This record gives sequence, C-alpha cells and structure tokens, in this order.
Amino acid sequence: MKAIRDPVHNIILFNKTKEKLLLDLIDTKEFQRLRRIRQLGFSSYTYPGAEHTRFIHSLGVAHLTNRFINKISNITGDALINELVDQRLLITAAALLHDIGHGPFSHALEHITKIPHETWTLAIIKGETEVNQVLKTYGINPWEVAELIQRTHKSKAAVKLLSSQLDADRMDYLLRDSMMTGAGYGTFDLEWAINVIRIGKVNGDIEIGLDREKGLSIAEDFVMARYYMYINVYFHKTTRSAELLVSKIFTRALELLESNQIEMPEGLAHILKDGITEKTLNHYINLTDDTFWYFIRLWLSSSDGIISNLCQRLIKRKLYKAINERVDLFRLVEKANTISKDTGLPVDYLILRDEASSSSYKDYYLQEPKFGEGQSEREASEQVFLFDRGGKAEELSNISDIIRQIRNKKIHIERIYVPEEFKAEIIGGEA
Amino acid sequence: MKAIRDPVHNIILFNKTKEKLLLDLIDTKEFQRLRRIRQLGFSSYTYPGAEHTRFIHSLGVAHLTNRFINKISNITGDALINELVDQRLLITAAALLHDIGHGPFSHALEHITKIPHETWTLAIIKGETEVNQVLKTYGINPWEVAELIQRTHKSKAAVKLLSSQLDADRMDYLLRDSMMTGAGYGTFDLEWAINVIRIGKVNGDIEIGLDREKGLSIAEDFVMARYYMYINVYFHKTTRSAELLVSKIFTRALELLESNQIEMPEGLAHILKDGITEKTLNHYINLTDDTFWYFIRLWLSSSDGIISNLCQRLIKRKLYKAINERVDLFRLVEKANTISKDTGLPVDYLILRDEASSSSYKDYYLQEPKFGEGQSEREASEQVFLFDRGGKAEELSNISDIIRQIRNKKIHIERIYVPEEFKAEIIGGEA
Amino acid sequence: MKAIRDPVHNIILFNKTKEKLLLDLIDTKEFQRLRRIRQLGFSSYTYPGAEHTRFIHSLGVAHLTNRFINKISNITGDALINELVDQRLLITAAALLHDIGHGPFSHALEHITKIPHETWTLAIIKGETEVNQVLKTYGINPWEVAELIQRTHKSKAAVKLLSSQLDADRMDYLLRDSMMTGAGYGTFDLEWAINVIRIGKVNGDIEIGLDREKGLSIAEDFVMARYYMYINVYFHKTTRSAELLVSKIFTRALELLESNQIEMPEGLAHILKDGITEKTLNHYINLTDDTFWYFIRLWLSSSDGIISNLCQRLIKRKLYKAINERVDLFRLVEKANTISKDTGLPVDYLILRDEASSSSYKDYYLQEPKFGEGQSEREASEQVFLFDRGGKAEELSNISDIIRQIRNKKIHIERIYVPEEFKAEIIGGEA
Amino acid sequence: MKAIRDPVHNIILFNKTKEKLLLDLIDTKEFQRLRRIRQLGFSSYTYPGAEHTRFIHSLGVAHLTNRFINKISNITGDALINELVDQRLLITAAALLHDIGHGPFSHALEHITKIPHETWTLAIIKGETEVNQVLKTYGINPWEVAELIQRTHKSKAAVKLLSSQLDADRMDYLLRDSMMTGAGYGTFDLEWAINVIRIGKVNGDIEIGLDREKGLSIAEDFVMARYYMYINVYFHKTTRSAELLVSKIFTRALELLESNQIEMPEGLAHILKDGITEKTLNHYINLTDDTFWYFIRLWLSSSDGIISNLCQRLIKRKLYKAINERVDLFRLVEKANTISKDTGLPVDYLILRDEASSSSYKDYYLQEPKFGEGQSEREASEQVFLFDRGGKAEELSNISDIIRQIRNKKIHIERIYVPEEFKAEIIGGEA
Repeated sequence: MKAIRDPVHNIILFNKTKEKLLLDLIDTKEFQRLRRIRQLGFSSYTYPGAEHTRFIHSLGVAHLTNRFINKISNITGDALINELVDQRLLITAAALLHDIGHGPFSHALEHITKIPHETWTLAIIKGETEVNQVLKTYGINPWEVAELIQRTHKSKAAVKLLSSQLDADRMDYLLRDSMMTGAGYGTFDLEWAINVIRIGKVNGDIEIGLDREKGLSIAEDFVMARYYMYINVYFHKTTRSAELLVSKIFTRALELLESNQIEMPEGLAHILKDGITEKTLNHYINLTDDTFWYFIRLWLSSSDGIISNLCQRLIKRKLYKAINERVDLFRLVEKANTISKDTGLPVDYLILRDEASSSSYKDYYLQEPKFGEGQSEREASEQVFLFDRGGKAEELSNISDIIRQIRNKKIHIERIYVPEEFKAEIIGGEA
Repeated sequence: MKAIRDPVHNIILFNKTKEKLLLDLIDTKEFQRLRRIRQLGFSSYTYPGAEHTRFIHSLGVAHLTNRFINKISNITGDALINELVDQRLLITAAALLHDIGHGPFSHALEHITKIPHETWTLAIIKGETEVNQVLKTYGINPWEVAELIQRTHKSKAAVKLLSSQLDADRMDYLLRDSMMTGAGYGTFDLEWAINVIRIGKVNGDIEIGLDREKGLSIAEDFVMARYYMYINVYFHKTTRSAELLVSKIFTRALELLESNQIEMPEGLAHILKDGITEKTLNHYINLTDDTFWYFIRLWLSSSDGIISNLCQRLIKRKLYKAINERVDLFRLVEKANTISKDTGLPVDYLILRDEASSSSYKDYYLQEPKFGEGQSEREASEQVFLFDRGGKAEELSNISDIIRQIRNKKIHIERIYVPEEFKAEIIGGEA
Repeated sequence: MKAIRDPVHNIILFNKTKEKLLLDLIDTKEFQRLRRIRQLGFSSYTYPGAEHTRFIHSLGVAHLTNRFINKISNITGDALINELVDQRLLITAAALLHDIGHGPFSHALEHITKIPHETWTLAIIKGETEVNQVLKTYGINPWEVAELIQRTHKSKAAVKLLSSQLDADRMDYLLRDSMMTGAGYGTFDLEWAINVIRIGKVNGDIEIGLDREKGLSIAEDFVMARYYMYINVYFHKTTRSAELLVSKIFTRALELLESNQIEMPEGLAHILKDGITEKTLNHYINLTDDTFWYFIRLWLSSSDGIISNLCQRLIKRKLYKAINERVDLFRLVEKANTISKDTGLPVDYLILRDEASSSSYKDYYLQEPKFGEGQSEREASEQVFLFDRGGKAEELSNISDIIRQIRNKKIHIERIYVPEEFKAEIIGGEA
Repeated sequence: MKAIRDPVHNIILFNKTKEKLLLDLIDTKEFQRLRRIRQLGFSSYTYPGAEHTRFIHSLGVAHLTNRFINKISNITGDALINELVDQRLLITAAALLHDIGHGPFSHALEHITKIPHETWTLAIIKGETEVNQVLKTYGINPWEVAELIQRTHKSKAAVKLLSSQLDADRMDYLLRDSMMTGAGYGTFDLEWAINVIRIGKVNGDIEIGLDREKGLSIAEDFVMARYYMYINVYFHKTTRSAELLVSKIFTRALELLESNQIEMPEGLAHILKDGITEKTLNHYINLTDDTFWYFIRLWLSSSDGIISNLCQRLIKRKLYKAINERVDLFRLVEKANTISKDTGLPVDYLILRDEASSSSYKDYYLQEPKFGEGQSEREASEQVFLFDRGGKAEELSNISDIIRQIRNKKIHIERIYVPEEFKAEIIGGEA
C-alpha cells in the first residue's frame, strides 16, 4: 500500500497493485501541476492558513470515493451495487481527475480566456496527454472518464456517486477548506455521513442518499455547513476584493496586449489567440499560480501606470475596500469622475462592482454554468434523498423545515469596492 | 482586536491600538512577501498538505510570544518580569520578524549565494525598508530588534524568551509542521507547556524554563517531538532528494551563467555579482518561491541538456532515488563512469551525496552556523532548565535519563542518490 | 494557580489566592457529591461514553463564565462592564453552584418527590450547609447567589451573563455532551463565540449578545447545535425508554412503600414524608446515583414480581421498545388487556407512554417550569441579540431566516413503549 | 451494522449478522455490569473527567482487534494470517471479554479477597453464566476463550495478537485514559500504528510487530506514551492516596467484620468466607462500584471511630497528603506515636506507606503477577519486534537507544502519606 499523510483524512491509502492506475495518474505531469494551483485562490489573503492545493484535494476526493464504494458494497448484494463495485477503478479515476483542468487564479483566468476549467478538464482527459496515455494503458477508456465527469455516462449509479449534493468532492472541500482556513464553519460528522450512506431508486433512477432515520440531522448539518462556508469564506469581502483586483489586472493586461505594450506569459498569449488546440493544451499545462505571480511582479515596473498600480496593490495586499454604507450610486460616480480627472485613473478602476450568488441547496458558484449539462439535469442531481427502511425515498427539503428554508434562500452578494485612499472622499463622509 | 483565524492556534488576536505596530509590520511589503515562501521547502513533495508559509508561521510565533509574556507576567512581580513586560512590544516585534530574511527554496539558494538568511533578516530590519520605517515610527530602535534576534541585546531576559530550547519559534513550527504534514510526530501538550513556564536565574543569568515537578514530562516530550520530526519529516529521504535536485539545478545554472548561456532572475544575478547592497536588498525582497518555479519551467527548454533534464525531473517529481543497499563506493563510481560515457551526463549528476546532522537537544540544522553568535553562547542557550519550588534550577539532561540519551545521540544521515532509471545498473543488481 | 485537566477545556485554572472561595466551594461535601451524579442520566445506555458528571460540568461552567468576564472586560470601560467585573467572584460562584441541587436519576426522582432540583439548589445555598458557610466566610451573601440563580438579582447584567440563550451553562453542556456521547452534533466554534461576545442595552435593559457581522453564523450554528442534540441525544428513544423504566420503578416502589413491602433508601423515605426540611436536606445530600443502583439491585429479589421484573430489565438493559408503526390505540389497549390477564402484569406496565417537547430557541426541557421565574421573564431572556458597530441590537430571529424557522418549530416527541417480548403480539404483527 | 458512538474511536461497528455473537455477549448481565465499574478507579479524584468504564474500554478493545485483523489480512495470503482470519470471532470474543472479571474498586478489593481479577475472568467465562451460555450457543468453546486470555492457547498467532506490548488493550487504554483525564500524555498515532502492523516469525514463533523502517518512531512513541501515563496518571500521588485510603477502609472493615461490628455487602461477606464458588460467582457479578459507595456512606455513621473517620475522608476527598520532604523515618514514627496517644488513632492509620513500580517496557502494574503465566513466557511477549522488508525481525530495544534507556529504567514510587492535619506536626516543621 502507498500511504500518503493528509491533515484531513490522516492516511490516504492506495493499493500499489490493484490501484496502480491511480498512482500512475498521480505521477503524470498534468496531475503534478495541481501542486502549484491553490484550492481557494485568494482566500489566503483573508485566512492565511488556506494555502492548500488542488493536488491534495483531488487525492482526498479519490480517497473518499473509495470509502463510499466500500461502504455501499457492504450494504447488500444489489445489482446496482455490483455495477458500482465493478466500475470502481473507472469511478475513482474520474474522482481523481475531476479538477485536473483547473487553472491558476481560477475564475479570473476563465474570465479573460472565456474557457471554463471544465472544458480544459475534458481536453486533458481526451487529448494527447500523459493522463490520457495512462488511462489507455490500463484499459480504461478516457471518453468514459470524461462522460462520468460530464454526467452523460450511461451508468447512472456511477454518475450519481461521483456528483451529487452529498458527493465526495463537496465533503472533501468543506472539511479541508474549513480546517485550513481555521474558520470553523464547514465541519460535519464525516464518519457518520459515510456510515449512513444508502443507495436506492427514485422514479426508476438510481440515487445516492442517506438513511432517513439516522441521516436526517447529518444531511441538514451538511447543507448548513456549505451555506456557512459560502457566506463566511467563499464570499468573504476581502477575498472577493482580491479576486476583483486580479480580474482588473488581467483586463488591463489584455488591453495593453492589443497595443503590444506588455509582456505576457507566452502560453497565455497563444491561448488567448487560438483557444483550445493541441498545442495550447500543452501551454495550459505549463501555467500555474507561479507563472502569474512572476508576471505580476514584472508588471510592477510596467510603463503603464494603471497596471503597475494594480499589481502594486495586489502584492502589498492594499486591496480595494467595500463600501458598507448605503450610498447614492449617482453621487458615487460623480465623485469618481472628479477623482478620475485629478488622478488620471479611469472611473472603472475607481469603482469595482461585485455580484455573486449561490443557493446552498443548489450550488451555482459565481453563476458560471457548469460545462456540458442542462439546467434540469443538474437540478435533479442537486437533491438529497433519504431512504427509509423499506427503501422509500423522500427528498430532503420535503421533510426538513430548515432545508426548505435554505432552499428558498439565495445567497446573494452585491458589493461596491473603491481604493481605500479615496473611500472617504467617494462616499462623501468618514470611512 | 484584529482576529486572524489559524488552523494551529485557532484565533490569533492583535490589539488594534496597543499592537498597531505589529499590524503595520504585517502590512509591509517585506512581510507580505513571506506569503509566497513555503515554511518547509520541498516537504510538500513528501507530505502534500505541507504548503504552509513563513507568513503564518511568523504570526504564530508572535502570538505564542505574547502568550508566554502573559503567562510569565502572572507568575509574580519580579523585577525580571517587569523587564519583560515593559519590553513586550519590542520582543513581540522581534518574534514577528525573526524569519523575515528567509528566501525562496531556502537552503538551496543560500548555498549558491553564500549569504545565510539570517544576514538578510538583519539587513531588512536595519536597511531602508518599510519594516525599518514602521519600527522607527513607533519609536522602536531597529538595531535593538536586530540585537534581540542576534542574541546580543543587553536584556538577557528578552533574549532568552525569544530564543531558547523551549521558545515560541520551535513550539509553533513543531505543531504547525506536524499538523500540516499530517505526520503526527511533532505534537506535544502546548497548553500545559505554557501553564508550567517558569522564569528564574541560573548562575546569575536569567533563564526561561519549566516547573520541575509539573514540567519534566512535557520537557521530555517536547525534545522527543523535535527528534521525531527531524528523523521522519525534516530529513525525509524524498524531501532531501528534491532539495539536492534543486541545488544541482542552481549549481548548473551558475555554470551556465558564467558562459552566458542561461536566463536568470534579474535580481538573483545582481545578488550573485554584488552580494548584499542596498540595491540587491530590494531585489532580494522581490524573490519568492514563484520566481524560481517560473524559471524552472523556463529552463525546461534550455539548450543545455543537463539543466533541462534536472528541471524536468523536479517538475514531474521524478526524483533521484536513495540507495538503501550497502554498496561499494569504488564500484559505484566505476559504473557511473560507464553510464556517463554512454549518456553524456557528468558523473556528479549521476551520483548525488547527501549528508546532514542534527542533535535534537542542540539543533544544528544542516550544520549551518547561525549568524552572529559564538559556539559557547549558543550551547548555553540550548539547555532546558527546570525550576523547583524554591527556584533552584536543574538542567534537563541532568535529571532525565531519556534526554541524556538523546543528547548524546547525533541524528546523522548520509545518503547516496542516483537517477531511478540507472539505479539497478549502478548498484549492480535489482533495485 | 490550581490547574485541573479537562477533556473539553483542556486546562481549567483557578487562582489559589484570588479565587480561593471557588476552591473552597469545590471542597464542600455538597459539591463533592456531584462527582456521583451523572450529567446525562441514562444517556450512557445509548452512548456508553457519556458517564461524565455534574461535578466536571459545573467546573466547566465556572471556567467559561470567567472567560466571558475576561472577554467583556477587555471590550471597553463601560459602566455596565465595571459592574460585571466588580461582581466577578459572586457571579462565578453562582455559575459553579447553579446545578448543586441536582439529584440522582434526575427527572425520575423529581417526579416522585415533586420537588424540582432548583428548589434543592436554593435550599443548599441558603441552608445550614458547608456551601453556605464558605460563602459567608468570604463575605458573599448566599441570598445574592440564590437571587442570581433565580434571576431576581438586582444586577441585570450579572443575571444575563449567568443565564441566557448563549450562556456558559449551555455552551459547556453542548460541547461536553457532544464529546462524551461521541454523537458529533453539539459542536460549535466556542473560541469564535467568545471572541465576538458583546454587551449592550436593549430597551434599557442589559443584554449579552454577539457582534452582528461576525457573530450571526455562530449564533445560528449554536442554536442549531442544541436543536440537534435534543433530537438525537436528549430525546433519543433508547435513553427515554430507560428513563421511563426508572420512573415506573419508583412509582411501583412508592406503592409498595405505602404497604410497607419494600426497603427504601432511608433518606428518601424521609423526604417523601416531610418534603424539604433542614433534616431532609442533609439526607438529600447523601443521595447519589450509587444509592439507587444499590437499591435497584436489592429490589431485584423483592417478593413483588412487578418491581423485580422492572429492576431486572434496567440492570440488564432489556428496555421497553418504542413502537415505530402506526397503531390503533384502542386495539393496543385491548391486546394489552389480554396479555395482562395471562401474565398478571398490569396494563400500565405493559404500555408506557412518553411525551416531551422542547423548542430549541426556547428550551423547556420536559416542560418542567424552571423554579422561581415567570413565563414572560424567561421568554425575554431566551432571545439572542446581535449588536452592530453602533451598538444597535437586533433579535436573532428577526435577521435569521433559519432561526425563525427553528423558533416556530416545536421539538415534540410522543412515543409508546412496550416490553420487547410482547411487542409483536401487541402491535399485532411482526416487530 | 450496529453502530456505537465512542469519544475515542468515533464509530464502533459490529455486524448484526456475522458478529451477532459479540452483540449477544454485550447483552449478558456479566458484561452489562462493566457499565458500573470505572476503568481508572480513583483517578477521577485527580482528573475529574476520568469517569469512563470498563464497558466502553472493552468495546474499544474488540473494535481495535477487529481492525488489526482486517489490516493483517490485507497484507498477504500467508498461512499464519489465514489462521488469524479463520479464528477472528474467537479472538474478538476474547478481546471483548478480557476484562470481564474486573471488580469494583479494583486493586483494593483484590487486596482483601486475595483473588485477582484474572481469576474471576476465567470463572465467568467457564462457569454457569450468561457469557458462557452465549459462547456455546455460537459454537465457541469457552475454554478456548479462556486459554486465549491466559496465553496458553495452541494458536500462538492468536495469543500474540491478543496480548503483547502493542496489543489492542494497551492502545485503547492509553488513548482513552489520555483523552478522558485530559492529561495529554498518552497520545500516539493510532492510525499509523495500525498502518504499519506486520506479522512474522521470530525463532520459529509468530510475533505481531511493526514495519522496521516506517514503525520505529511510532514504536518508541508508544512505549514512551505508556511511560508518561504511569508517571503522571496511574501513579499520581493524589490517586494513589485515595487508593490507599480505600485499602485502609477495607482492612478496617475486615477487622470489624470478625467481631461482627459492621454491615458488609452480603455478597462480599460470602466471597470472603468461601472464595470462588458457583454461588459466590453470582454474588461477585452483583458487586459494582455503586455497592461500595453505598456502604461507604453507611459506614460514615459506624460506631467505630476509625472507619467512620476514613469514610468521611474519602467522601469529602480529604485525602492523606504525601510527604515530599526528606524525613527521618525513626523520628516520624516517634511523632506518630505521640499523636496516636493523644487521639486514639492507631499509628498504622497515621502513616500510610505506598510502594509501586512498573517498567514501561515491561508492565508490572503494582507488581501483581498476572494470572496463569510464567515469568519467562511473559517476558518474551513483552518485546516489540520490528520487521524489515525481508521479514527479518529485530527486537525494539536492540535498535532504539531511547527504549534501551527506558527498558533499564524502573518506574518506582515510594511515598509516605499522613493526614493533612497532622502533617506539620509529623514532619516537625512547616508542610
């Protein structure tokens, strides 16, 4: 057994013989690259412990998926279960690779390339990559892995196991993000959740759910944990401010690129020009958080005052400040115009607007559509089912007043950020 | 109060009024830079959770130093204690800044620049930096901070508090490294250790120690925790292999630099040429882990086969393998010569030799002398004292058989690493 | 400092000089007696780790009360705060003693003596006891301690600190019960809760609350934690079954006592006869869980078949089983009558009915009125207030959709229990 | 699956079908009785959280034994391993029952009955008990269970698994005692220990050990954990003082019994008279901690001044105090004689002498020989073996300097206790 120590799961074990596929996938350059992509982007600007990477999160998800299959396979000798157990390696490989396409500075980069990370994930799995090669070597069809991640695979049981309200991905990230930030909101009783996992049919379709009697409280607790993490961590105003700043930096860099006034990571330039191609895929794999930090330092000394100013702010963590006060938007813009005239800074660098929403019982982070799936299909999968002893399923919000409450509650943020030094002036009073 | 969440200490509090100095120091660019310097270098190649930074470690050390002073100030109204309490801000500032000079890829970089990180620490504190400016603004003499860190400050009580066997630095790093690696060796009962802290005089000198009756077991446990962390984490053969590889990369880069065949981070080139100057200090502050990762990716496509080969290995984590078997060194070199002829790789890239030692009751990591202190002075401070109710002190190893055992035990490693693909051939048998 | 180790709070410290009152109170026979009264009664029949006592819980509450006062006293130099700090010893003593009147087999004993434990608490504080003596020795008026516990004390700030939705009592029992049962539901972020405690005025009255911005999630999380503990632990059907059984044993013992057919703990016989008097107070102090276990073993060999049968069940943990199925109550009684005729067991020993409710945002455990307080007064104190930066208060359920939901939700259980061996027959089908 | 929540292991699972034997054993009256026997006797007088019982410890040991067998059975398809897996139920039953004979107030009771608890364990397993009946029902030979516990069973592999330096018993009690006391000394990395368990042959005999490379540190850490628990918890001077006091109470009760001047638990009187018989076995099963607490309260009002004085002290926790100062034993006795004349208290109630030793790498708690095993046999089993990759074993102290140190170190305590009120007088100075 290969044993990997982990702050969250303590020991992650992979069988050196039976799971050599997984170990070989981990050794590919595409997967090793995840070591240099932070899980939470700029959350470490708010929670300085949160430096954990997509690499360890992905190991955690594969590990939990294995534990889920072990647990389910002990329940009963159902045909559904055999289906899952037979496909164990395929499913665990998909779990390991589900985030393989994540890029550096995640959402900001997607914003300028217009290519969601899910698209890169599929490209890496299907393209001419080491990952693709390893899968084939072990007789795994990469297209099936892609289908599992896209939720279009014919085995509904496998799809549901991999991606649902209560899946391994969410369980790992809640526990990990909670531990690493130290924020204390995302905890729930993982061992009990695994203990009460059930599998059953709902309207003819397979669903992964929990035992109704023993699992109701944990289901509620889990949904609540996510709700609190969104409010307190993922949507934290300092973190969002840093992310906005990076977006602005990239937007400015794009403008300067057009007039050839800026040096850009070579690979990114190609991606911006050509989109996804076999060649740009290779460039993408070479882009990590490091690349951008290097360029941000470089742009510090750009002759363009705007980009150097923005990069200066990012590196020194002199972030834009949110306006908590109720303000008259018209007056705000007026003030910003005056300041713009005095300083030469364009108004859209003086006022940054942030808007994001999520439903905790739905999960649209930043309203970005997930790749390759229709709305209704996702909706369905977002439900948590509770199975009674007879196997009868009830959807969580039907039996939980609390969750029904959350379900109807949209987590929505709308914030306006301005440079700290102009804040008093812009809001026309004391900060 | 400014509250910072931390996985190790849960909440780190700084008073926004009384400790504004500390908050302002944290906001300097020199301190913010520590966000991009990993605490454990390449340990994350072995323990993928260990991505924590010097930034959060430094916050933790300041926090613990504060707790130590609080505890001591509650013990009694001794003159010694008043001395510590009066200098609280100076001492905590020194605690916060004790690692400010750490560079990226720590030991490897020191190896080629020949400038220890302690020297940079003093330069940052005394030079024309934001840190220096902030200290002065609050009426703190930067030279005193430097003296505290160097252990030459006239207040022996303050020096001992900051730096001793049982200091805040070691307590934080053991707990943090243990938690983040998940290795489970470095734990000890922090709360009890703080609870039994004592202060007293030994041969006329102030010493920080523990209560003899209540603190003996924790003192032993603490020394043992460090011993296990050295053996299992800091000297881990995979981690050391990655560090050796980086050293080789830098060595090769230096060779190529002489013949102008390689691009180098601009700042580093200046440092290599000029050593520490006011200008290179500024360059140094701009060097972080990111810079080197960027260049390592760049050197991948160098025309020099050796450096591109080494960088390839580092990025893909195809590290050199340690030889566990007993081998005939003469035969080893002979074999390496043959392979060298076939492949063109020089012998000193085929056989890497690692040697390091530490005494857990002494702490010479990598045998690098600490800056600015004589041998005997250090020796003295390395002792742990236990005070009985009457205030009489005994040195730990005098009363602990276990520690006496450890004291005489040098942790020494000597390993030979070779490329995995040549291992079988080189050791003349199966791997 | 006297240091007491505790699984929940790690180290509980009392100052040997300034808090000698507390240490002396702990040393009284009335307080030492709490070592033999379990905190959770029969919960250990469901959760076998839950053997913790009222003794350690009381220490925990005093400890947390101290931490609350420390935190509040750091906030600002408000007159309200001075009031609390000045009365620190009085308040902490009341916190330590708040449960001093708890008896063995708590609710069951109250049920037959008709004397609530709150009445005993006041009697112990005001009566001729060691506790009373110690308080006086330190110049503390025992009647003031009693008033604080009864909530009739003139210092509203002290009353609110001691007893509110977010008080030290609830915080300690949730964390402790959660840890000791291993149930994993009652956890919340204690450190953060303490960090965001605020004090302010609402309609002219002092209230202890939390910071609105930083404390909303923790307030919700705390209220939810209690809700889950009620559902999953305090109202657990196995635990309730054991408690019902004990009540039946006591009821039967009372019946037998009237006809002089049973031996009874001497002290209890006096209490049943005379109620609270100076003499019976002394008897009460000698009753602990042990006393009853001894008598339950004794009653095993009673000539009365009913009580020996019930005691047998309790000792061997052959509890009555809840009927989960929907049943026709009329038919149930009919069946029970038949069995009664066959076995000689009265129908009211064949069918046990359990009913209890609690509102998690109100806290009426078992609908027992708390001693000495009117309904409206309690209601008021049950609210959680959140203070914004300007000191303006909002009641929690006004700003939290989730809590509003819980608030309107009554946790109500109604269960019917029958002997396992008759279950199939009584419900007329398979169990 | 039957899931039992536990503070130490979180969830303890037993299979309702395959492990119904275990569930039925738990339901016997002999096993249920362990709910009222504390694991650590009077340690809760020092560490008030330590109220945990033999019941939950026994569940924990069965659970860990199951995990050990699971781990070993995954290592390889060795014949030895098959032997263990085939006997899994027998071994786990023995693990569950290993402490079934423990009595109330453990060592004190053994002291006066002269019957070690191991003898009762065997009697319960082999006698006419529910435990015996259940074993037979499932086709398990109770004599084999007894042989396993006595270490005389023919399957050496099973014997070694159940009882060795690194067995499930020690692992559970260290972790549990450490957690419940809050003392923080007994922790070690359980998950890693299980992960590196190995099985192999040493001089033709089976041994359970650890992987040499990966397990050396954990082996040392484990041995050290036990060493610290002895020094700081098991041999704590306050705990030992309470145990001495109980012994004195029993000794006095015996004296009074001879002259018929005291009421005694009926069962105990029979045991004292007849030793172990079928009938007294039944009495023994009815003795729990509660019984003695009841009698200690009863003896409070004995006409014998000595026993009522001693019981008073125990109930109010007014324990004898250890003399830390060096004293002249001759003078001590002289003083005690004078006090004896004045007070009427015999000298052997004025001076209590305590002596105990243990070797942490040997484990003779209180120098009581374990039942039914020769010295040399035990010695052998006390060794920890470390297996290298080739299966070659080395005994721990051969390769660990630290353990060699501990091995030669006897933990020995010798203390003299006197009543607190006479302490100053007896030692002839200030206390």
